[in-house]
Formats: sequence, structure tokens, C-alpha cells
Amino acid sequence: MTAAALAPNCLAGVRVLDLSQFEAGPTCTEVLAQLGAEVVKVENPKGGEPGRILGTGPKPGADAYYFMIYNANKKSVTVNLKAPRGVALVKEMAAKADVFIENMTPGTIEKLGLGYDVLSALNPRLIYAQVKGFGTGSPYENSLAFDMIAQAAGGNMAITGEVGGRPVRPGPTLGDTGTGMLMAISILAALFQRVTTGTGRRLQVAMQDAQLNYTRGAFTNFARTGKPQERGRAGFGPPVPPNDIFPCKPGGANDWTYVFNSHNNPEHWRRLAGILGRPELGADPDYLDRDKRLARADEVNQMVTAWTRQHTKHEAMAILGKAGIPAGAVLDTGDILAEKSFEDRGIIQTQHHPSGDLRMPTFPVRFDGKPPEIKPAPLLGQHTEEVFAAWLGLGAGDVAGLKEDGVI
Amino acid sequence: MTAAALAPNCLAGVRVLDLSQFEAGPTCTEVLAQLGAEVVKVENPKGGEPGRILGTGPKPGADAYYFMIYNANKKSVTVNLKAPRGVALVKEMAAKADVFIENMTPGTIEKLGLGYDVLSALNPRLIYAQVKGFGTGSPYENSLAFDMIAQAAGGNMAITGEVGGRPVRPGPTLGDTGTGMLMAISILAALFQRVTTGTGRRLQVAMQDAQLNYTRGAFTNFARTGKPQERGRAGFGPPVPPNDIFPCKPGGANDWTYVFNSHNNPEHWRRLAGILGRPELGADPDYLDRDKRLARADEVNQMVTAWTRQHTKHEAMAILGKAGIPAGAVLDTGDILAEKSFEDRGIIQTQHHPSGDLRMPTFPVRFDGKPPEIKPAPLLGQHTEEVFAAWLGLGAGDVAGLKEDGVI
Repeated sequence: MTAAALAPNCLAGVRVLDLSQFEAGPTCTEVLAQLGAEVVKVENPKGGEPGRILGTGPKPGADAYYFMIYNANKKSVTVNLKAPRGVALVKEMAAKADVFIENMTPGTIEKLGLGYDVLSALNPRLIYAQVKGFGTGSPYENSLAFDMIAQAAGGNMAITGEVGGRPVRPGPTLGDTGTGMLMAISILAALFQRVTTGTGRRLQVAMQDAQLNYTRGAFTNFARTGKPQERGRAGFGPPVPPNDIFPCKPGGANDWTYVFNSHNNPEHWRRLAGILGRPELGADPDYLDRDKRLARADEVNQMVTAWTRQHTKHEAMAILGKAGIPAGAVLDTGDILAEKSFEDRGIIQTQHHPSGDLRMPTFPVRFDGKPPEIKPAPLLGQHTEEVFAAWLGLGAGDVAGLKEDGVI
Repeated sequence: MTAAALAPNCLAGVRVLDLSQFEAGPTCTEVLAQLGAEVVKVENPKGGEPGRILGTGPKPGADAYYFMIYNANKKSVTVNLKAPRGVALVKEMAAKADVFIENMTPGTIEKLGLGYDVLSALNPRLIYAQVKGFGTGSPYENSLAFDMIAQAAGGNMAITGEVGGRPVRPGPTLGDTGTGMLMAISILAALFQRVTTGTGRRLQVAMQDAQLNYTRGAFTNFARTGKPQERGRAGFGPPVPPNDIFPCKPGGANDWTYVFNSHNNPEHWRRLAGILGRPELGADPDYLDRDKRLARADEVNQMVTAWTRQHTKHEAMAILGKAGIPAGAVLDTGDILAEKSFEDRGIIQTQHHPSGDLRMPTFPVRFDGKPPEIKPAPLLGQHTEEVFAAWLGLGAGDVAGLKEDGVI
């Protein structure tokens, strides 16, 4: 797809039987696919997984961008789980798989006859992974969860927002993708262990619980103060200025730059004072000392604002960054897609899908210099014949018969 | 530590040589430690890694809570990297290690003589992992990065905040921990591959790039509209109500509950109308139809607000959850620490550290029913003798000599 990307093939030969849908499960299996596993989505013959129609896509009536972005590099087979022979077919596949994953509502997979006890008895080497909204034993065990529910109940919203404002939902989909990443870690650890032990493991993660992994800093603030962390007050102690986002030229919605001075490194202030045209303040103890600068927070923030307003966010980030002052322009998706280096480095790639293209980020870790190559998300049932032949030895006639009987 | 937790031991026998500091690197190696790897932090004999003094801890002058929460289950040795014999010692350890990881400022590890070329030549099986702020080839390649800088430049802040408001930094430390999780995935995939190939890999992640993995939904919105996703407008198309946080009794800073109706599931509204005491609206096409309900957004949100104001967030979440309506109370760290089920399920554990206790979340995935057990973060140099004996065969006399010479 691009010279800047390569298939890292770390998981060549690993078979993942994927009954997950929407985002929390699919982000997990997408990473595994990008790292080289053969991920086979098992989908309802009537329309496939519900993510296929979440919002629009490149063409009316075709798969949604939502589906394309979370299901790159995978295969798709159709199976009717309401038909007993369909369930039997999934069991046969589970016997040949290394990993099984599902994120249906609580109790559904067991009612289908595909619970842990059944599949692990058929295949003791199977790694059986489940993603739910709340943990078994939680008071909310049977409640529904979506990304924003996990972000509320998992502690993310309580620490996000303006000082004195109401809680805010973080835009990144930590409830879903944040959970999927932790399950990917767990599956890989279990796969590694299985090389030695020869047996699989049962893995379970709750979206609510997963959030705690990303908000641990707030637990240290609770330990220090006995109180929940206030919004707009992240960090260790009082917010020594500057430690905020500042408005930039020409004043659009995303024309802002974060400027930070580490409270452990006085060099940041010395350098910044020079940039602000006030080098004498870099040596002035009334400003250099972090506690004294904190007492002058409004004055310092106004000085920084006066400077940032004279620059675009890109200029501000470049000037401050070069001077050794931590600074980050508030980049949006448009800015990121317009910055050529993401594509040159293979971090942004184009998914060439039969319905149309999608420019998107890949799994952004480089393996021997290159991140994983993006391949298109599968059409519904695109790999049914291929996978049933390779995994179960079925011929074209067998597959046609199963189709005729409404099993697949 | 608790009957609800167990060491999963997936990575038993894996040796990780850890030169990382602060959060992005240490969260990666903490997961590996909790999954059973032997993670050895290599620290400056004078004070150790800078995270040890970031904020206060259980006792004045002792390790900070910050350090304790990101370094559980690890070991610590001291090595003076300014002494040539110290660098030689790290090379000897790298020859015996499976994984090497660092997150120093760009160019530092190479200047120390511990770059990829040097260590991979000494040990071709070594998995060599680096975390930086910006990617090689990025215009900001040499700029400093902290969590908030990555969250600004990685797209998180542009999509976080109130409608029409300025960008907001998400409270969860995605810039750091979000990056660490992606590196953990990559290390585990490389370890698995090495079982077959016998050779290590070079892994590199940039904190800015890592954020794109968590904001992929915003890229689908860009593909659909050609414009960056607006703040307060996540999701697929217009925000069909309710899809927001609502104020609860008694009106404290975190007394809010998120209430959501999936725009693909009309049952959510039917159920909610009953809870709100207006069952007739559940069947009324002017409200049931999502586009018509959107036109009445203010009215619907006021009805929900009138109801949530009569309940605490815990009541609201319980009542709505039981009725099959997606709802999540905005829980803060105090709420989470007070909810007994987290401890009963082993998700929250107490780290018993020589300086004092810290109640904290573990890696929240259950392996055969139990999440990983938390063990205390190491004191500076606590395992110097043990590790140098086991890895390098040094005796107590050798270690004493190295100490005397200022090498460790």
C-alpha cells in the first residue's frame, strides 16, 4: 500500500475466531490482524455485524467508515447462529482456532452454546476472551455499556473539563479502544505462555474496569489529598504557570497551543522568558521560583497569551519546541491529515476498499522502522469459501449446500 | 495480597532491562511485570529515576505515590551511566535480557553507547524498544513531550470539550499510559515471534502518533464531512437525545449521570419514557422517531433533567441500568474506592510498600477469573545484589567493589 509500511508478521499462523462487534472487541482483533494474525470475523448472513451500518461510508448502502476503520486487515465469513448447524460450524472452527473473542451482551454467548466451558473442552489450547461492560460481581454486571457509559463509570469524565465546570466526556474512545488494547495485551501474553504450557486461558475484561488503567494518576492525587482530583487540575500539586492551552492566530475553533513548564525544570521558564521578550524575568527569583510564579499566575498567563495570539499554532509549536519548551499545537484530524510527515512515515495510510478510500491511522508502532501495512476491511462473507476450505476442509459444494440451507 | 488476585505468570522467565522513567515507559513495563516478567529498573544511584520524587508519598522524603503506582511488581538496581564501567555493566545485562526499553530525550541513549546497533549486535535476540515524543522524520522529531503535549498534538484535545467551548485536555493520561499500552502489545508480539525466529526486533513508538490509535472515530467523521469533528458532538451524525450527562441530587461537583439512547435501538426510548412517567411518549412517533426526537432535543433533555435531579447518581444508574437503558454515573476516584465490589473482584488492591500503603487499580484483565496481584514498587537499588548475582554471576564482594568505585 505504501513503501513506508510493512506487514510485521509477528503473529503469522495465529488463528483468531472473532465474534466481536462495534469497537471494543474489533479494535483488539484489528491490532492482532495488523501484527499478522489471521482474524476471521463470524457474521450474521443478514447484514453482518451492526458496525457495518453505523453512519455512512464511501458509497450509499455500502459498509460504513466506522466498520472500515475498526476492521482493517481481517477476513469475514457468514454463519447463522440461530441455526443449530451454524453453531456446530463455529464449534468446529473453535477446535482449529488459537483465540476466540466475543463482546455480546452478558449471557448471550453462553445461551448460544459457545460459552467457555464448551469451547475449552473442545480445544484446551484455545485462548477464550470476553469483553463486557461491567465485571462479573459488579452491581452493574448485567447493565448495558457503550463507550460513554464506561467513560462515566470508569472515572474519566470526573477528571475531564474546565475548572469549576461540569464533567466532560473525553473525545478519544477510551471506553472502547482503551479496553480493546488491554485485551490485546492479555491475549498476546497468553499466546506466549501457551508455547510452554500448551494450554489456553480464560480472559475477561470489563470496559468500566479498563478505564482505571488510564486514570491511575488520579488515584495518586486521592492518596495525597483524600479527595477526588479536581477538573482542570491534573498534575502534582498546584498548576505552576504556564500549564494550559493558549489562543493562537487566527482564532479559529482549534487555533490553540498547549504550553507547559515542568515544575521540576527551571530551564523551561528561563527559555520561555527569552521567547516572550522578557529575558530578565528568566533570572528573576519572583518568576523563576515555582511557588512565586504560581502567585503571579494571571500575569504569567497573560504574557504567554499576548505572545501566542501573535502566532499561528504551528508557528508557536515550532518556535517553542525549537527553544526547548514543551509545547503542543491542538491539532485536529484535518491538521493531521494535512501534515505530510504522517503519510511519509506510514502512520497515516489509505485503506483502498472496494467501496472507496479511507485515509486513517495504522497501529502506530514501528517494527524495524516501519508500522504495519493497512489492508482493506472485508466485505460481508468475502472469505467464507476460503476460510471454510482452509480451516475445515470444506469444498465449494459443501459451502453452497450450507448456503442453500440457510446455515451460512 | 488478596484472595481475589493471582500472579498470571504468563511471562515467567522473561527478563526486561528497563531504562525508562516517568510514565509512558514505566506503564509498559509495569504490565509486563504484572503478567510475570522480571522487570529490572536501571536507576541513577543518586536519587533514582525522576518519577521517585514527583509529588509526595506516604512519608516525607520517601518515594512518591506517582512512582509507586507506575512501578509495582518491578525490581531496581543502581548503575552510574556516567561511569564507563556502568555502561559496560548495562551491556552485560543487555546480553542476558530479552527486552530492553528506554524513553530518554532523543539521542541520549545513543550518546550513552547503548543504541540499537550496539545492543542488538551484542544480543541478536534482544527486543529493543524506544518511546519518544515525536516520530523520527516528524518536523518535531527533537521536541520535548509530556502527556499533555502528546494529547494536544495527537488530536485528543481538539475533540474534547463542551459545544462551542475551547479544547480541553482529557483527564486520563493517554499521552503516557495510552502509549505505554501500545508498546506493551508490540513487545509481546515480538516475543511471540521470537519463539519461532530466534531474533529480536527494533520497536519505536512516538507519543503523538500513539494518540491517533485512540481517536480513530474522529477520522471517520472527517471522512464523512471533510471537516474536523466538533467538540461535544461525538458519534455518528446528529446527537439524538438523550446523549449527555445530566445533573443529579444533591448537586455536588461529580453528581452527574450519563444517559444514552442508541440511535439504532428504539427500545431505549420506549423504556426511558416509562421511567420518566410518560409511557405514552414511548409509542408516540413524534418522540420515537430519532429525527423527530432530535427536533425536540431541548424538551427531551429537560424531561430527563427533571427526573435525574430527583435521584442521586447511584440511584439513577441503578434504576436506568435495570430498565435496560444505557446509563453511567460520573464516578470519581473516591466513589470507586468506596465501592466494595472493585476490591472484592481484585481490581482495586492495596500496595503494601515499606513507606506506607496505596490503594490502586491493578491491570484490570482477569486471567482464569483473577486479575494480576500487585506487589510493591522497589526501593532504589533494592535488588542490586540479587540481580547482579542471578544475571551476571557477581558475588557480594564484586558488588561491594562496584559500589565503592562509584559504578553502581
